[in-house]
Amino acid sequence: MSFVPPQRTLMGPGPSDVHPDVLAALSKPTLGHLDPVFVDLMDEVKALLQVAFQTENRLTMPVSGPGTAGMETCVANLVEPGTTVVVCCNGVFGERLRQMVERCGGTAVVVDDAWGRAVSPEKVADALKAHPEAEILAFVHAETSTGALSDAETLAALAQKHGCLTIVDTVTSLGGVPLRVDEWGLDAVYSGTQKCLSVPPGLSPITFSERATERVQNRTTPVQSWFMDVTLVMGYWGEGKRAYHHTAPVNMIYALHEGLRLLKEEGLEAAWARHHSAHEALKAGLEALGFSYLAPEGERLPQLNAVWVPEGVDEATARRRLLDEHDLEIGGGLGDLAGKVWRIGLMGYACRPENVRHCLGALETVLGRTGGLAAAEPLLDEGVAA
Amino acid sequence: MSFVPPQRTLMGPGPSDVHPDVLAALSKPTLGHLDPVFVDLMDEVKALLQVAFQTENRLTMPVSGPGTAGMETCVANLVEPGTTVVVCCNGVFGERLRQMVERCGGTAVVVDDAWGRAVSPEKVADALKAHPEAEILAFVHAETSTGALSDAETLAALAQKHGCLTIVDTVTSLGGVPLRVDEWGLDAVYSGTQKCLSVPPGLSPITFSERATERVQNRTTPVQSWFMDVTLVMGYWGEGKRAYHHTAPVNMIYALHEGLRLLKEEGLEAAWARHHSAHEALKAGLEALGFSYLAPEGERLPQLNAVWVPEGVDEATARRRLLDEHDLEIGGGLGDLAGKVWRIGLMGYACRPENVRHCLGALETVLGRTGGLAAAEPLLDEGVAA
Repeated sequence: MSFVPPQRTLMGPGPSDVHPDVLAALSKPTLGHLDPVFVDLMDEVKALLQVAFQTENRLTMPVSGPGTAGMETCVANLVEPGTTVVVCCNGVFGERLRQMVERCGGTAVVVDDAWGRAVSPEKVADALKAHPEAEILAFVHAETSTGALSDAETLAALAQKHGCLTIVDTVTSLGGVPLRVDEWGLDAVYSGTQKCLSVPPGLSPITFSERATERVQNRTTPVQSWFMDVTLVMGYWGEGKRAYHHTAPVNMIYALHEGLRLLKEEGLEAAWARHHSAHEALKAGLEALGFSYLAPEGERLPQLNAVWVPEGVDEATARRRLLDEHDLEIGGGLGDLAGKVWRIGLMGYACRPENVRHCLGALETVLGRTGGLAAAEPLLDEGVAA
Repeated sequence: MSFVPPQRTLMGPGPSDVHPDVLAALSKPTLGHLDPVFVDLMDEVKALLQVAFQTENRLTMPVSGPGTAGMETCVANLVEPGTTVVVCCNGVFGERLRQMVERCGGTAVVVDDAWGRAVSPEKVADALKAHPEAEILAFVHAETSTGALSDAETLAALAQKHGCLTIVDTVTSLGGVPLRVDEWGLDAVYSGTQKCLSVPPGLSPITFSERATERVQNRTTPVQSWFMDVTLVMGYWGEGKRAYHHTAPVNMIYALHEGLRLLKEEGLEAAWARHHSAHEALKAGLEALGFSYLAPEGERLPQLNAVWVPEGVDEATARRRLLDEHDLEIGGGLGDLAGKVWRIGLMGYACRPENVRHCLGALETVLGRTGGLAAAEPLLDEGVAA
């Protein structure tokens, strides 16, 4: 039998709710990957990605795989055997970066911060001073595993001061909080489609600065991955005549185009403001229900609310009830945080007043508490665009 | 503006026409990648892939990237630095396998055959004898660049005789011609969704035999790709509790499920017969129009008809007219065959009598010739199910 999924509200760490226009775009008739009409669409997607990333980088395109493939594309192209990389670890994805650096033959100098905290610029400055051989600084802008937001602008400035390039994970930040690739001078940046772009999972937008592109061109060893070698991929995604590299995921590109188009139509600043004000409302409601945040004020992602599960709550059972009785998905914790925190997403199309209400109402029912909705409502009325 | 693609008929080397039920499945509401309902669907997809591949291999799943990512998954997991691999090169994809083997630190022993010919079992036997250090034989079952079909069963038997594992490219063969992974003893097999499965491009089904799985488990070096490391990926796609590895491309999995379901409903043997008989009709028409085949009789893929462009025909202009005036996509040649051959696909949902008629009729108009449709019609009436 054909599969008929239930209609969930996706407020976990991603995938998040997909915009209905994006779902409609997905099922448009498939074109050939070298069809001139599709090639024109590729150009539009690149231009829209430049807007979303706030960059004029020519090497800006979607990798034909999930965010993890985008991460590895950045690492595999920039890291050669023997390259020293300062890697900031304050959650699951920093740790993943470290493993990838080592699998590419690089040496990782790890800067550890507690899970739930932002990356410490002081520690990074110390590590860069202590390791003058370092050529790259790698960090996560928005840690999806903890809800912590790091100061990408300051970290990038430190890297530049020490002559390092940056690899920056913006999987959860793109479209949700301010991200200015050119103004901040970020070098190799990757993201995902399934968070604040309101597109299903499956693609990973990347952008490389001229410095990063030059580094790839000046490598003395081949990129270990043929699939991810951006020099080869740009034969297809670059300018001029398109050479076959792999068959592009045509329908997913339609979806990404529509998601980016909607983001541009709304405006980046408006989208960032929407995420901020919905977060304020959700936060008021969650705190009224007895939740407290993992990340301290000032280091929190509005679009990913990681909160301690209140004492006495059986978290797995409660989450299962949210799903089964309210069709609401929220996320559990990863690693040491499993069973201890919940991750409540407000990303892209999922970041709407009705979702804040739905989430708080469902939590009230499942936890047998009250006051959350009442605390959020005034902030929803004021702040969040419908 | 939202993108509105034209409705093409896709008879190139892929992507091929997508079944309407598959397009409908694509735009169903997105689920979380750990939602129990989605996890059940993953199990169904694995079981359906086992049917399509004719295997009971437990490690059977779709890689979250295009066929090239599936190819590299097979190579990166089985090849360690110093591994010798006999690589059969009779087209673009054999050459790509060679490059990947070398980027993984392996040594490629190349067995060359002319583009358009099947892989020669005699040459392979000689190479395996001359290189007792070889541990793997890699070859392409159905060369999409030339339309040549190689004898996978015979090649796999040779590999076994010499104690080698096999890496086999079935991107274009899966669902179009007989492929029996277990009966033939193939070890690491990859395919694509955009050929005979009638699904858009973006995923790469793979299957690993127990021998191949053991080889991965007994590696002495880590798989160089974190994204493609099947030991990590199977933490998510394997049995029991699912651990997060990357966010699965949820909606593309819906599409693959529907395409595989339709293939099982039709029956593999019936699908193979449909491709065979549509090819016979197309061939009669093409030959009546003055085309001849690149591959000799007996080494031809029914689902990919690579034919010499008749003398006096401006191939690029003619192909552009087919696209612009008839919304028909056929493929040009790659590499040395560029400008010399056309590749006309009859894959999956594109393999229908109306497409054979549409293609021959459009060719008659564009080339100013007649007799193609008339030659094909009797064979269409007899052989091809509607």
